Parts: sequence; C-alpha cells; structure tokens
Amino acid sequence: MAYRFSSDVYRNRLEKARQLTADAGLDALLVSTGPDLRYLTGSRADTFERLTALVVPADADPRLVVARLELASVRDSAIADLGIDVADWVDGQDPYGLALAGLPPSSKLAVCDTMPALHVVPIASHTGATPALATDVLRELRMIKDDSEIDSLREAGAAIDRVHARMGEWLRPGRTERDVADDIRAAILAEGHTEAAFIIVGSGPHGADPHHEYSDRVIEADDIVVIDIGGPVDPGYNSDSTRTYCFAEPASDVADAYAALHDAQRAAVAVIRPGITAEQVDATARDHLREFGLADNFIHRTGHGIGLSVHEEPYIVGGNGITLRPGMAFSVEPGVYFDGRWGARIEDIVVVTDDGCEAMNTRPHELAIL
Amino acid sequence: MAYRFSSDVYRNRLEKARQLTADAGLDALLVSTGPDLRYLTGSRADTFERLTALVVPADADPRLVVARLELASVRDSAIADLGIDVADWVDGQDPYGLALAGLPPSSKLAVCDTMPALHVVPIASHTGATPALATDVLRELRMIKDDSEIDSLREAGAAIDRVHARMGEWLRPGRTERDVADDIRAAILAEGHTEAAFIIVGSGPHGADPHHEYSDRVIEADDIVVIDIGGPVDPGYNSDSTRTYCFAEPASDVADAYAALHDAQRAAVAVIRPGITAEQVDATARDHLREFGLADNFIHRTGHGIGLSVHEEPYIVGGNGITLRPGMAFSVEPGVYFDGRWGARIEDIVVVTDDGCEAMNTRPHELAIL
Repeated sequence: MAYRFSSDVYRNRLEKARQLTADAGLDALLVSTGPDLRYLTGSRADTFERLTALVVPADADPRLVVARLELASVRDSAIADLGIDVADWVDGQDPYGLALAGLPPSSKLAVCDTMPALHVVPIASHTGATPALATDVLRELRMIKDDSEIDSLREAGAAIDRVHARMGEWLRPGRTERDVADDIRAAILAEGHTEAAFIIVGSGPHGADPHHEYSDRVIEADDIVVIDIGGPVDPGYNSDSTRTYCFAEPASDVADAYAALHDAQRAAVAVIRPGITAEQVDATARDHLREFGLADNFIHRTGHGIGLSVHEEPYIVGGNGITLRPGMAFSVEPGVYFDGRWGARIEDIVVVTDDGCEAMNTRPHELAIL
Repeated sequence: MAYRFSSDVYRNRLEKARQLTADAGLDALLVSTGPDLRYLTGSRADTFERLTALVVPADADPRLVVARLELASVRDSAIADLGIDVADWVDGQDPYGLALAGLPPSSKLAVCDTMPALHVVPIASHTGATPALATDVLRELRMIKDDSEIDSLREAGAAIDRVHARMGEWLRPGRTERDVADDIRAAILAEGHTEAAFIIVGSGPHGADPHHEYSDRVIEADDIVVIDIGGPVDPGYNSDSTRTYCFAEPASDVADAYAALHDAQRAAVAVIRPGITAEQVDATARDHLREFGLADNFIHRTGHGIGLSVHEEPYIVGGNGITLRPGMAFSVEPGVYFDGRWGARIEDIVVVTDDGCEAMNTRPHELAIL
C-alpha cells in the first residue's frame, strides 16, 4: 500500500470532522502532529517546539499553520491536493495568533491528545480557557474503521503473524533476550512493517512484568517466554500480537494456568459483537481467570484500541461502558503473571463485524513448544 | 558513563526544583515522562496514555504516581535510592486524583512541556485552571549545566566529531542519501551514542531544505552535501553537529557564499560571553550574512539549547532577550539556502564559560572536499 490513502478519503474525513466540531458546539479543532493529523491529512509530520497545527473551524475551510522550515514535512500529505490554505511562520513570530486568526475571541477549542503542554498552555492563554480534547469530538470517527483501514489492519496482522511463525529461527536457550529482539526487529521490517514499534522478549521472571522490553538476560531451557511485537505498515496502521513460547513440556502448574488463560482469551473474543460493552469483554476474561483462582495474576486491562496509534480508543477496561460497533478494532490480550517466576499472555487484534468479530491474527494460541 | 548520575545529583536537583516551585508561588510541579523527569530523577520512562507523574509540592517531599504495570520503567532511576514515595494505580482508577492528593483544592500547578493534552486537560479540570509551564520554573536550573553535564556534552561532541571525521568512508557520488544515512547511523552507535536521534543527508537541491532528512536521491559529483547528525550518550546528553561536504573545488558563487557563512558562524561564536543576549548572537550571524546579500538565504534561527533534549532553552533567536550565563549550552548553526539548488550549514555546540565559550565540536569548519 502507499504511505497514504487517496485525497478523497481525507476530504471526506475533514468534512466529517468539521461537522462533528460544529455539532459539539466548538469553534474549531486544533490538531498538531500525531495520529489525528495523519488521520485527517495523511501527514507524517513530527514537530515538537515549533507549532504545526491543522485548524478545522466549525464553519470554514480547514487551514494549516506550520513553520516555514517544516513545510517539507507536510509536502507528501494530502494537504496540497486538497487545496488547504497553508500559513507558514518563521522563528520569532507568534504561531498561536496565526492559528487562531479568524476565529472569534474566547473561542471554544479542542486540541488533539498528543499536543504537548508547551502549545496547550499558550493556546489556553490566548482564548482564556483550557481547550477540550479533540478525542471527545473525533472519537467515533477514529474508532470506527472503514474498509480500507480494516484492509490495512489485516495486512499488518498477517505481517506480524509471519514474524511469529519464524520465531523458532531465533528464540532458543543460550541466547540473550537482546539477541532475539535484534533478529525480531529485522524480521518485523523484512515482513513488511515500516518500523518495529515495540519488542518485548520476556523470558522466565521477566515474563512476569507485562511491560518488560528486553535485556541481556540469557534465556534458559526451562523458561516460559512472552513475545509481544508489532509496528505500522503503510499507510500507518499497526500490528500488535503476543504469543508465549517454551522449549519443553511445561510443568503442570504452568500448563494449568496457561490453559485457563487460553480459555479466558477465547471466551473474551467469543463474547464480542455489536451491542456488547467494552467492560463486558474485560469482565469476561477477568471472570474466567477468577474461576481458576487467577484473578490477582491478571494485572492489566484486557485490551486497547488500535489503528494509526498502537494504543487508542476503545480501551477494553472495567468502567468503560462504551458499546461495541462494527468497525471497532482492538486487542484482546489477557495475561497471567507470577512475580519473580514467569508470565504468559495471548494477544490478537480483532475488528467488530455485524455479528461478531474478525481476528487479524491467526497463529495458534497454544503455548508453543519450540 | 553510566545511564544516570549518582543519587545525590538528583536529590540536589529535586530540592532546587522544590525551592523554585515555592518561589514561583505555585503549589506543585507535575512532571510526566520526558527530559524533565530524566533531569530530576534519572528516569528514562516513556509512557503516554497511562499517567506517570512526579509531583514536586512546594512544601512537601516529592512523590511519584505511576501505573502498576509501568513500575519497572522507573526501577533503574534514582527514585528508589532517594526514598521517593511511589503511588501506583491500576487501569480503571483515576490517576489525576492520586497525583493531586494532599494538595490544596484549586491548586496552582505547573506541568512539564512534554505532558500531552490528554493529561493536561483533565488536570486543568480537577483544579479549575490551566496549569502553567514547568519550564517557567525550571528554566534556569535546566539551562545552566553543571560540570558533570558539561563533561557529558563534551563526550557527546567528541563522539559526533569522530563520525564526521569518517565521512569520507561513506559519502561519495553514486550512492543514495539513504545508503549514506545507514552507514552514518551505524557509526553514530559505534562511536558511543546510545541512539541515532537524527540524520540529515541533504545533497544538491535537498541541502536547500534545512529539515530534509534523507531520500533515495543518488548523490552527484557536483553536489554540495549538508550532513547534520547527532544523538544522546549516557546519561542522556546529546550531540548535534553539521558540516558541509563536496567532491571537487566548488564554483566561485558557492565558494563565496560559503566563505560568508563561515565568517558568520565564527563571528557569532566570537561574540558569545556572559552578559550578551541570545538575540545578539542571532543578530551577529544574521547581520554578517546580510552584508553579503545573504539575509534572505538564512531562513531559521541561529541555534537552540541542548542537553537532555536536542532542542531546549535557550533558543538563539530574534526576540529572545535572555542574557547568557556560564553553563548555558546551545548550537550555533547559521546556514544559507538556495532553493532548488544547494545549501550549506555549519553547526557547533558551545558552552558559555566565564569569559567566552567552549566549543564541544572541533572539526574544521571549511567546506570539506572529500
């Protein structure tokens, strides 16, 4: 796939964003660099202290404010094709005044999640009020993936599955987690990702830390090893899949806990369909593990939305009463963690369909003996 | 060097930060992940949607709020050694309430520059006011580097100089910018950096775009090539140095413009000493280029502060009246850009001394003919 969709896709998204902004009673959205900007314009720009802001007024055409020497960063987006007005500024000028030009004084604004405080604070100072979050406006739009987005997630899922399928080439006792991670990184790129966004090689006791990355620990023959990997494929949609590996028949306590986890993951996936809430999916996995006395060993939420961001809405977590709808994409990744000893996790990305869900990952879910 | 300084360094910095917070009439600083957190605790944690916040109250000991499954991310910082109280939270809990616990209602807060709007907005909602920027409190502390920080900047400068010294190994006509960038990346790591933070290989017309990165363009024999590279060395301080290269005696118009640039960079460095302002340094380079009719070809500020961030205060830019003081570290990097044809830039990092400045980079400044 190309690095972005056709310009019509972005024209359509921008018009929907404008409509949602108006519906929310806001004067404008201000979107700095990050996934919302990529979603709305295809731009992969990444600036920090020099403000880049797409301004989406409720009642006018969108405009872009960008530092003159960052102009190239938006060149390969849909911005030129769409005829979006670009206002550039040079060091020493006030980009906030430029971004707010033409908007009413004391505008009601929303800013994207990723906008750093460095820009949020002066924008609030210009308008006299803390802005809202653009996520509250764009949530539905970003959460419901269209067919081309789902195609991209499917492509990403197949790419990371191919990496997991090759795990036996690299993962073996005597190597360090770092050695294995280096090989996985090369394979993530070779199998079609544009970047290795994250790599977890959690061997033995390190598997008990869900966010361990990798270390110089030498993998041992009786280790259980958690491998959680992913990254984006063009035009920016991410893979994210976890499988758990070992090198010999596991001890019976490990086998029993893993079987409970396997059932919990399957049960959570099975409950997914339109009308079910995010927290019901979380509760399904959690209740299942509780039955096996493993409630305290499952120490994180069941999943997170995924798309242009690796973590986005909807979060599959207790307290999130959002109702699932077709096109929502998220991970289902319960885990069990035994501090200082071992851990296991099974993770697939799924997309909600009209009557259930489709898994983007299709590798076997059993504890894989390499 | 180790990945962090001794715990005493952080104890000292935290106490100064507390004092500055009190002096500013604030109730507390809230520092999420990023350079301020690394500066104050040595932590390299990097979380996004799950709040990590170091809370530095004006009148109490600092505390850390962190998601339970991110606890490992702060383990190798000075937080445990300093006995900082750690309050962890799990998915579904309100981390903002936890962060603000014990502070007065309607607290006056400041947040770090890098805190995303995702956290700034709910914090503002809890306190009823937009927070200030912690930079306004920590600016002096972060800007004035102590001896161990300057040692680290010196080490980073020497490391990137070694990469520039090897440029002839990789940079030659017939290769693509990307080929050269790949070799430079390996050398940046091999010469002691922990990461290649940025690589610009701007050949021919690409050199006219100051923020071009690299492309598949094949380098030609009569190209002028801008190479701007850098990255961090442990414990996190960055290098950043630009040199301009070619492969044959340049045409006389190129040689003349480069000579003016060379003089402008030297003049800007020569003017640096305590008592001079940032904008005076900028004006020195700019005025010099104006004399040669090149004012319109110098399209960016003269420099930026550097330390744990590649870009930080003080910015060497028109309108910045800050007075230079010993220990300030920043780039001096005028450039000249001829749209569609070529560009050149010369960049050294300097640290202000008692009576001038010390350059962290010592490679020759002439247009290098490889």
